[in-house]
Amino acid sequence: MSGKNKTRTAVVALGGNAIIKEKETGTISQQFRNTRKSLVGVVGLIRDGWDVLITHGNGPQVGNRLISNEMAHRMVPDMPLGVLCGDTEGAMGYMIQQSLFNKLIFHSIKKPVVTVITQTVVDAEDLSMRRPTKPVGPFFSEKDAQRLTRDKGWRFMEDAGRGFRQAVPSPYPLEIVEIGVIERLLTQGIIVVAIGGGGIPVVRQPDGTLEGIDCIIDKDLASSLAARMLTAELFVMVTGVDKVALNYRKPDQVDIDRMSVDEAKRYQAEGHFFAGSMGPKIKAATEYLDAAPKGRVVITSPEGLKDAVAGHGGTVIEAG
Amino acid sequence: MSGKNKTRTAVVALGGNAIIKEKETGTISQQFRNTRKSLVGVVGLIRDGWDVLITHGNGPQVGNRLISNEMAHRMVPDMPLGVLCGDTEGAMGYMIQQSLFNKLIFHSIKKPVVTVITQTVVDAEDLSMRRPTKPVGPFFSEKDAQRLTRDKGWRFMEDAGRGFRQAVPSPYPLEIVEIGVIERLLTQGIIVVAIGGGGIPVVRQPDGTLEGIDCIIDKDLASSLAARMLTAELFVMVTGVDKVALNYRKPDQVDIDRMSVDEAKRYQAEGHFFAGSMGPKIKAATEYLDAAPKGRVVITSPEGLKDAVAGHGGTVIEAG
Repeated sequence: MSGKNKTRTAVVALGGNAIIKEKETGTISQQFRNTRKSLVGVVGLIRDGWDVLITHGNGPQVGNRLISNEMAHRMVPDMPLGVLCGDTEGAMGYMIQQSLFNKLIFHSIKKPVVTVITQTVVDAEDLSMRRPTKPVGPFFSEKDAQRLTRDKGWRFMEDAGRGFRQAVPSPYPLEIVEIGVIERLLTQGIIVVAIGGGGIPVVRQPDGTLEGIDCIIDKDLASSLAARMLTAELFVMVTGVDKVALNYRKPDQVDIDRMSVDEAKRYQAEGHFFAGSMGPKIKAATEYLDAAPKGRVVITSPEGLKDAVAGHGGTVIEAG
Repeated sequence: MSGKNKTRTAVVALGGNAIIKEKETGTISQQFRNTRKSLVGVVGLIRDGWDVLITHGNGPQVGNRLISNEMAHRMVPDMPLGVLCGDTEGAMGYMIQQSLFNKLIFHSIKKPVVTVITQTVVDAEDLSMRRPTKPVGPFFSEKDAQRLTRDKGWRFMEDAGRGFRQAVPSPYPLEIVEIGVIERLLTQGIIVVAIGGGGIPVVRQPDGTLEGIDCIIDKDLASSLAARMLTAELFVMVTGVDKVALNYRKPDQVDIDRMSVDEAKRYQAEGHFFAGSMGPKIKAATEYLDAAPKGRVVITSPEGLKDAVAGHGGTVIEAG
């Protein structure tokens, strides 16, 4: 793009729960409405001249795919988790790219928005492969759980007394296969949606070929890897809360406006951030900042994003 | 890409039936195996230096999604056809990009392969919108068909005495929204998978915004549009037969090695090509050749593709 000034790159990770909210079933109108809300702050970044990579979670969506898969299994062949993740990358990418494109039209910004189907490499020997810890999909009775363990080799965990859910491994992301193409598109002024659900998990064989593997990758850790590979100046995680908090949901809860990477690591070690929610986000933030000491992390809600990026709200984490 | 010679662009449209074959249910191993077979000829084109856009059908795959959708509708919200099409673009794109990448490794070709989620614009006033003619998804009893007509406004058609199937419109493709990005990737030596299932159908509102619409786009007509927009030199349609035939499946069947665009139009007018199968392919071919008089169309099977492109087999259609 001749005459184009050097721009800065931002990676914005949208929570899957920002698109199907708690207590929603995820009708198409709910998903489109929530997607549009989540994108308000992203439009602000684009107007300010940032090159933007949008990543997203897919927890509730892949959960719905697993339910359909199971309910239709007598008529439609089961698909492995990676292919279901491909489903959600396609459908959610479509919703996000169309919603963002439409919003940009109202701001007279003529930029293409494209979704790139993404594979993320993990290690088949990752310790987590032997110890599945991530609950996915529907709740089953103990009897059905036993049947599925026998018939399909699924592993189960009891989830907070509500029933049994399939437990899958969540190995560490090592490589984003399509990062080169994503970078090329970003430098050409194209807005990219990618790494949905953390990417479709694959392993790299000794001969270099790729093969799918049954697990789920944490989307914040995969987004952090992308932010490092792209040398992004800004890494935003959009989630259900306006700010990161210490003593979360306790009487002495303290919201954090700003912290250093060292403080973030200390609070993490002190157990302030839960494994299933803020924990991976703080890990994603500190891994990114360790590699990008001039970078900035913002964690906030869809509603808070615009102001937070401008420095008024959310939680900002920086190296210094 | 400095120093890169001018290459030629080929559009290769794979049939959805080439990936789930007739009488197969479409297990994941069947789909991967068929995908790999379908790609043998594509590898030949890439080795010969062509820039390749791969498009694909999704008939059996979106049919399976409709069955799951229906069987799970008490627990998982219904998704519209366009979002299900997004599902199949993601999952099938993943299968194709991974399978092709792996094949290229064995030929020591280091080219990225990416899937771009694609939207195709149609006219909401297209005549076909009022007259749904394309059967999709599962078979229903007359009683269930009546219930779904009442509850969901679906329209039905009886399909060859086997039961009732949902009938959806199949409007004419007018514009591939992402064609600019696809072209940019191709000229940079990247292999692109796009326009799956003909693209996710959308209409363009007077203000320029896009909105999904419930229908299915013929993937060969959409691929033909892409071939014209890309000024491709070669347009290949991979299907279930080695050659186009006159008097198909009759005692006097004649396979065609080569025909001119005028001959193709004449045979089409004479009713040699069926509406649900070869008809749209011949229409796609002649529309492309009318716009690209130096172009070449090849119609053949996955097995025949490599030889056909080299001039030994399949049916070749040219302007002259």
